[in-house]
Amino acid sequence: MKSRVCVGMVGFGTVGTGVAKILTQNGALIRRRVGVPVELVRVADLDITTDRGVRLPQGVLTSDVRAVLEDPSIDIVLELIGGYDAAKRVILDAMAKGKQVVTANKALLAVHGEELFEAAARHRVDLGFEASVGGGIPVIRALTEGLAANTILSIYGIINGTANYILSRMSREGHAFQEVLTEAQRAGYAEADPTLDVAGIDSAHKLSIMVSLAYGTPVNFKEIYTEGITKITPLDITYAGEFGFTIKLLAIAKFLDGEIEARVHPTMIPSSSPVAQVEGVYNAIQLVGDAVNDIVFYGQGAGSMPTGSAVVSDVIAIARNLLKGASGRVPPASFQSDQRRPLRIRPMEEIATFYYMRFMVQDRPGVLSQISGVLGRHGISISSVLQKGRQEGQTVPVVIMTHTATERDIQASLREIDRMAFISEPTTLIRVEGHGE
Amino acid sequence: MKSRVCVGMVGFGTVGTGVAKILTQNGALIRRRVGVPVELVRVADLDITTDRGVRLPQGVLTSDVRAVLEDPSIDIVLELIGGYDAAKRVILDAMAKGKQVVTANKALLAVHGEELFEAAARHRVDLGFEASVGGGIPVIRALTEGLAANTILSIYGIINGTANYILSRMSREGHAFQEVLTEAQRAGYAEADPTLDVAGIDSAHKLSIMVSLAYGTPVNFKEIYTEGITKITPLDITYAGEFGFTIKLLAIAKFLDGEIEARVHPTMIPSSSPVAQVEGVYNAIQLVGDAVNDIVFYGQGAGSMPTGSAVVSDVIAIARNLLKGASGRVPPASFQSDQRRPLRIRPMEEIATFYYMRFMVQDRPGVLSQISGVLGRHGISISSVLQKGRQEGQTVPVVIMTHTATERDIQASLREIDRMAFISEPTTLIRVEGHGE
Repeated sequence: MKSRVCVGMVGFGTVGTGVAKILTQNGALIRRRVGVPVELVRVADLDITTDRGVRLPQGVLTSDVRAVLEDPSIDIVLELIGGYDAAKRVILDAMAKGKQVVTANKALLAVHGEELFEAAARHRVDLGFEASVGGGIPVIRALTEGLAANTILSIYGIINGTANYILSRMSREGHAFQEVLTEAQRAGYAEADPTLDVAGIDSAHKLSIMVSLAYGTPVNFKEIYTEGITKITPLDITYAGEFGFTIKLLAIAKFLDGEIEARVHPTMIPSSSPVAQVEGVYNAIQLVGDAVNDIVFYGQGAGSMPTGSAVVSDVIAIARNLLKGASGRVPPASFQSDQRRPLRIRPMEEIATFYYMRFMVQDRPGVLSQISGVLGRHGISISSVLQKGRQEGQTVPVVIMTHTATERDIQASLREIDRMAFISEPTTLIRVEGHGE
Repeated sequence: MKSRVCVGMVGFGTVGTGVAKILTQNGALIRRRVGVPVELVRVADLDITTDRGVRLPQGVLTSDVRAVLEDPSIDIVLELIGGYDAAKRVILDAMAKGKQVVTANKALLAVHGEELFEAAARHRVDLGFEASVGGGIPVIRALTEGLAANTILSIYGIINGTANYILSRMSREGHAFQEVLTEAQRAGYAEADPTLDVAGIDSAHKLSIMVSLAYGTPVNFKEIYTEGITKITPLDITYAGEFGFTIKLLAIAKFLDGEIEARVHPTMIPSSSPVAQVEGVYNAIQLVGDAVNDIVFYGQGAGSMPTGSAVVSDVIAIARNLLKGASGRVPPASFQSDQRRPLRIRPMEEIATFYYMRFMVQDRPGVLSQISGVLGRHGISISSVLQKGRQEGQTVPVVIMTHTATERDIQASLREIDRMAFISEPTTLIRVEGHGE
């Protein structure tokens, strides 16, 4: 039996600092849970001078990544540098040397996950990535273990704290996107380049990982429809509220007749639903299983210590495997590697849901009849119309909520309608979930 | 390598039926996750004639529990009969025969957990009990694995669906406890004898299990203060609302200076908190860890299929262990069996929190001064007073909210106050959490 488990860390940034603090502060607790000490023996980072507020023993910190990868005492390598090429090299090199790996790198997993899963299976090592989705929320473990008895029927996730923070403040204060973004950047809640967050790409990375685990299918990341929150206006937030809805950037997956829907976009959901209550930088993921029904996980989706908690939970799980010689006990992709089956991800035009459309029109007789005529010809049934403050000859918003319609029909209708002379700007389209017929 | 994993089930009631349905309907999925088939080969129940809506192969159903325990092909025994003596015998007999065990029996675990944990360690078998707390919510796994890197600072749980259903309806409709209980019994949401649920005992069972896992300590179930919802009135619910609070039956644990608070009682919590939104038969558990901060798990805490989902998640975890020869990989008590340490559970009189008190008084001059005088002498500081609809000479409610006070001082004050001539009935005391100073 091993007398200790040795951890080497590559990347001593925000998450790495959290991991180092947890392994230090909660070392005694972790030892009581695992049975032997779990020790951080090497930390590699290009910057070995900045004070991160955590004291490492002499000789642990190094600027040489090979000092981690080539140390035969190291059992588990943590890849916490982010990005694609260098991170992938660290992971594959570590695996090739028979080391277990933990990563928080959702972008890498979303794009190169299959290659990493395959390498883990080939080298018979564990690959942990609880930290890649939902920060400290143990949702990966829920998909691979806690809800493993279920066919997952749907996934709804608020899984980007920056976007949720911005939408929450827009909803509360009525301010425009750009204004709130600038404030969020000043307060440290948004990056200088916020594209990954506000364009929905980070959410799509995380959704890709969840879909892969939930359905045992490889996912081509490019097939996930991704739309951000940059075009959401206070006006649409207000209208949503009048219909009893809240706008959230939602990552959505559904299992339908052996095929999958997987998409990220601003979504109107009933304000009374648990997920709609999630404010600020919090994340929430609702999983619906055929046996368990709906389960919601809620917590901090980012940050040094919450994300560090997830990384160390993987370290503990892997240490427990090492002590029993049980690496690979749960395959990283959750399904046995020979049991993954490619499922078709439906192109966006095939999805069917409810829609909110805000037309900006010259207010004159016959406008509504022309719009509704086009919708009717495409088989789209209207559930509500909202038109306020009529001002003949002025530009006014006309809001239409539909019954279930297909994206194809909606887009075809909008192409026709947006060409009409009385339309003064491109129509705003927001998808609606959880409406019921 | 084993070519299949065989399951024997004792008890074919509500949960057993859910388990059988899941293993049948999702058998192919489970096989893809585990690598080999997981087969239900024996089901023992005294009633072998009732149609449960699930078809078992010929010869599986038996009225003889020994047919399960003595079948050498059976790897995992599911104890789903409930109760104490017979259930314990099934579990210990199965373990003695080297079989892994899964149970949903929270009462048994709360009272005899240490004996079962010890037996599992001695026989080197796994004991799964995800279904014992929160139905389908994977909260046991969160405590033992997902949040294993954390010192758990507190646990707040709405973990009894019947009590929550009754309180939710009382809050919404303003009806009295007894009236709502009767309706709940008629609708099947409450048992004919609802004592376990409405007196808080079931919640205390579940809290006892969570405390044991979170803190690595044996728990003497009798040390958990337990108070039910039978004395909650619509009047108190209304007053709570005026202060911005909702009344929930909460199971509470806190880790304070190496000691533990563990108590179940009706609690006022801020109506804006995520846990306060939990309505009807849903459960929610908030765990606060020193690294991860607050995490909330939400879902259906009872029912055939949700609870079955939890049982089968344990079956899958144990099957994965069996295939790797890794039984005991995670000790059932979450800490290594030689690493559990008895922690002191603080007697109720030592706890300190906020309090709501409703005094029923003869409305005459000087009453408030006498009440507040007693509180002041016991060092209790008042944060708000509410007295409405004064009717000189009549009995009226006077509501007082306190700053942090100890239970000892509050009880001593009430003993004095309730003896006073102007007090017309015993004072209602409801503890308040999450108030902030």
